[in-house]
Amino acid sequence: MVKVQVQIRLKKGVADPEGDNTLKALNLLGFKGLSAVHSAKLFEIELEGENREMVKEQVEEMCRRLLANPVIQDYRIELVP
Amino acid sequence: MVKVQVQIRLKKGVADPEGDNTLKALNLLGFKGLSAVHSAKLFEIELEGENREMVKEQVEEMCRRLLANPVIQDYRIELVP
Repeated sequence: MVKVQVQIRLKKGVADPEGDNTLKALNLLGFKGLSAVHSAKLFEIELEGENREMVKEQVEEMCRRLLANPVIQDYRIELVP
Repeated sequence: MVKVQVQIRLKKGVADPEGDNTLKALNLLGFKGLSAVHSAKLFEIELEGENREMVKEQVEEMCRRLLANPVIQDYRIELVP
């Protein structure tokens, strides 16, 4: 059993209203010194597989086919040890 | 400038329809050997601060007051080196 973490971020330059509004709300709550908040999505996938390289390739295909929108999103895949 | 990553997960036992449906969709697309998909939220916060311990405390307060719902969510704070 391998545990894989997939982080899906908005590409640079893509509007991030959730992040922007979270930053505004934190400022309104009185937090100081904040310069940016970015929102992103996280998936944790558990799957069978011995070969870590093959698992990574398979998860990359999942990102391309379902999890990420390549027009506006980047993904990063990390195998949890 | 310190960069902090906040992972906000659903607590164990809380229904995760997004994760469940992602798992179903991946199975329908033909991916094999999947046993679970969990969805979560990620915030990346950039803020001023020299003392890493104090920054962590401040972000913990942000989680308690705004970012996480303590009834159904857990949070994990990591300072990006």
